[in-house]
Amino acid sequence: MPKVLIAGGGLVGALNACFFANRGWDVEVFDIRMDIRKMEHVPGRSINLALSQRGKASLDAVGLKDYIANSGVKMFSRLVHDIDGKTFHRQPYGQPGEHIVSINRRHLNEIMITEAEKFNKVKFYFEHKVIKADCKKKELHVIDLNTDQLYKIKGDLIIACDGAHSAVRRSLMALPHFNYSQEYIEHGYVELNILPKNDDYALEPNVFHLWPRGDFTLIALANRDKTFTVTIFAPFKIFKKYMYDDKSVLNFFQKYFPDAYKLLGDSHIIETFNRMKPQTLLNIKCSPHSFGDCILLTGDAAHAMVPFYGQGMNCGFEDCLVFSKILDEFKDDIPKALAAYSERRVKDCHTINNLAMYNYNELKDLVNRMGYKIRKNFDLKMNKYFPNFWIPLYSMVTFTQIPYSKVVEKREWQNNIISKTQNIISLLSIITIGAIIINKKEIIKNIFTKS
Amino acid sequence: MPKVLIAGGGLVGALNACFFANRGWDVEVFDIRMDIRKMEHVPGRSINLALSQRGKASLDAVGLKDYIANSGVKMFSRLVHDIDGKTFHRQPYGQPGEHIVSINRRHLNEIMITEAEKFNKVKFYFEHKVIKADCKKKELHVIDLNTDQLYKIKGDLIIACDGAHSAVRRSLMALPHFNYSQEYIEHGYVELNILPKNDDYALEPNVFHLWPRGDFTLIALANRDKTFTVTIFAPFKIFKKYMYDDKSVLNFFQKYFPDAYKLLGDSHIIETFNRMKPQTLLNIKCSPHSFGDCILLTGDAAHAMVPFYGQGMNCGFEDCLVFSKILDEFKDDIPKALAAYSERRVKDCHTINNLAMYNYNELKDLVNRMGYKIRKNFDLKMNKYFPNFWIPLYSMVTFTQIPYSKVVEKREWQNNIISKTQNIISLLSIITIGAIIINKKEIIKNIFTKS
Repeated sequence: MPKVLIAGGGLVGALNACFFANRGWDVEVFDIRMDIRKMEHVPGRSINLALSQRGKASLDAVGLKDYIANSGVKMFSRLVHDIDGKTFHRQPYGQPGEHIVSINRRHLNEIMITEAEKFNKVKFYFEHKVIKADCKKKELHVIDLNTDQLYKIKGDLIIACDGAHSAVRRSLMALPHFNYSQEYIEHGYVELNILPKNDDYALEPNVFHLWPRGDFTLIALANRDKTFTVTIFAPFKIFKKYMYDDKSVLNFFQKYFPDAYKLLGDSHIIETFNRMKPQTLLNIKCSPHSFGDCILLTGDAAHAMVPFYGQGMNCGFEDCLVFSKILDEFKDDIPKALAAYSERRVKDCHTINNLAMYNYNELKDLVNRMGYKIRKNFDLKMNKYFPNFWIPLYSMVTFTQIPYSKVVEKREWQNNIISKTQNIISLLSIITIGAIIINKKEIIKNIFTKS
Repeated sequence: MPKVLIAGGGLVGALNACFFANRGWDVEVFDIRMDIRKMEHVPGRSINLALSQRGKASLDAVGLKDYIANSGVKMFSRLVHDIDGKTFHRQPYGQPGEHIVSINRRHLNEIMITEAEKFNKVKFYFEHKVIKADCKKKELHVIDLNTDQLYKIKGDLIIACDGAHSAVRRSLMALPHFNYSQEYIEHGYVELNILPKNDDYALEPNVFHLWPRGDFTLIALANRDKTFTVTIFAPFKIFKKYMYDDKSVLNFFQKYFPDAYKLLGDSHIIETFNRMKPQTLLNIKCSPHSFGDCILLTGDAAHAMVPFYGQGMNCGFEDCLVFSKILDEFKDDIPKALAAYSERRVKDCHTINNLAMYNYNELKDLVNRMGYKIRKNFDLKMNKYFPNFWIPLYSMVTFTQIPYSKVVEKREWQNNIISKTQNIISLLSIITIGAIIINKKEIIKNIFTKS
């Protein structure tokens, strides 16, 4: 059986391990962290995860879907909080019953590691730092952090799941024809928590709470332990200008998010802002995703994206599923499968990266605009009556497995139809009004009988 | 005196060494290669260099301009070769006398190393490989290739001049807010030579020879030894499809560049294509160019560009001059100078990278199009009569030191004027023709007497 070396034992690395364990391959996973199942506090970014169809389907392929989906909290709509702290309005995500699942990163990661380790051909090496991959020699260079010993490990396939700052990817940067870009957005984020109130959720749990305030935004997602993970997104210059000390931070929250402010509490807000600096958000695109006969980039190592479409994890999980299907198709011929993967998958990853940037604007502001609301309602109505013919953009991304690039093609087709329909309606209106004005009803009659 | 560590002793590294030697700083330069003055053949890319105003001004600041400019061959115009191998047309670069200088990379590099070494506070370390820079500790990590010993060298300022695949830049990739992109174009290049004929140049020396053939192009630049450096640029897929063996390569040259083909000779073409694979061309942009209190990226490490505007070296040299002036302005306060440099210089470097991509299309094809020729002639005529008011785009880039970003602003202003003038002329024509048609000459009289 071939041997796969996986750099990184985070969400995508652990899921890849499950996929290859199921194939019966020898699997070795190298993770810089301690075994997270033994840690009190796990370092690294969080932002609560929203599991949707692509992620579920990928988990389903290794038999984990129901177990994991039932460990989260279902969210059926956005609940938009007004600035008065009292009124809000609801925007369903899709048709009744359609939902995404708020899920805890750590819990999910732990389940998958345990699941993969059930196979005796799978081995996790914790506290092992991957420093580079050698494409020609098919080697992964790994340092055991307990002994500082460097190991050069040979494998048939090397999969980089080592995140946005991937060491594997970095070691490929000088290869000819490797296109790459990383772009920080002007927004950063700080994460807070709302505790339970009288042993129950302090806010309605089965919604995605949203406080859009133009250039900055607060969100809150429920956890199973009845807490909420709350995240503020704002430009770094806003953090600097308006949240520079205890008093200014409290004033800011009180002014713009009065209801959330009360639930968060002064001391928690102050403590968090003193402990944490705003974290950066990064958009990474590269092409190809596969190299030579043995290296594949997946997850954030291939396409770190801003979190505003809730697709980062889902896209990373889908990478595993797509590659697994391609390996089936090419009967485990690794070089052919790698070439086909880049050929098919890169454009989809570029598309979701772009959509995530687009939704960055939507979450900030659009949700409050009339035109956006009308289109959203129109799309949902159309979808209700023509469920296969007309699927809203958000639903295609979230509730289907239509390849991301096809999603955008379909959206353009919808826009085109709407635009043509509008033109026809305008034309007919003008003709009708014109006819009425010159009081020649005969004209109307003629036109409609002829057409 | 402060100490500057320079990664890379190529063109920009050696010029930086001259600048800091002139300031009286301690200078240490680390270069992976042997001392090129002792080598028979220097590895690495060439493509003959075209020295223009920005490069000259920078060399002038360290007293090298005349010496170096006189070591090259002046080029006053493009000479475009038709496909029949017999006819050609001439496109002057600017006003009579305005020229660029074809120059040999190695010769230029050697002069500058020797010049810098005249100062006893300057030390070149050859066969020393820079592997990373540590921003916090102000250290450069360097391996002596003769002993494999790693040195961590402290300095007050670290300047990366280690080229498109800069190790210094690579070690900064994970810093927050460092935006970066690298993009390979679909064209590659192969370099050949035309030898002297009867002890003289085989082609006219004081022009830039150009064989534009749509998607692929041949160029030739004269050297002082009466040879020509010849470069073919073509998409990799064209190389693969039409230049895959001895016979196909010769056929290709014979068909598309018949006059150059004769001068190159069968055996030289075959030998070159057997020895060399087509080389890649790369566009790199990043922002910022300076980091913390001590690191600066210059030259290709900051902005590798495709060679189609002949500005890669000139821009790298101008980096040295711009930073030197900023150090003067801030009285050698390094952190302030670094911050000011990124603030001012990044947009200019992004602009010339974009212009180089734009000229990529111009060289390929545009030079043969009527609209392009008319505009080129118009610009030169306008420039002749209004030399300060109207400078053509190419002349602003090549014969002035107007910051690149300002060059593009001025070009947009010119386009605007042309467009408005065209509108006015069109309007007047329509009115005149209309008036003639309806045979009311009185109208024309009225309009022109009123206006």
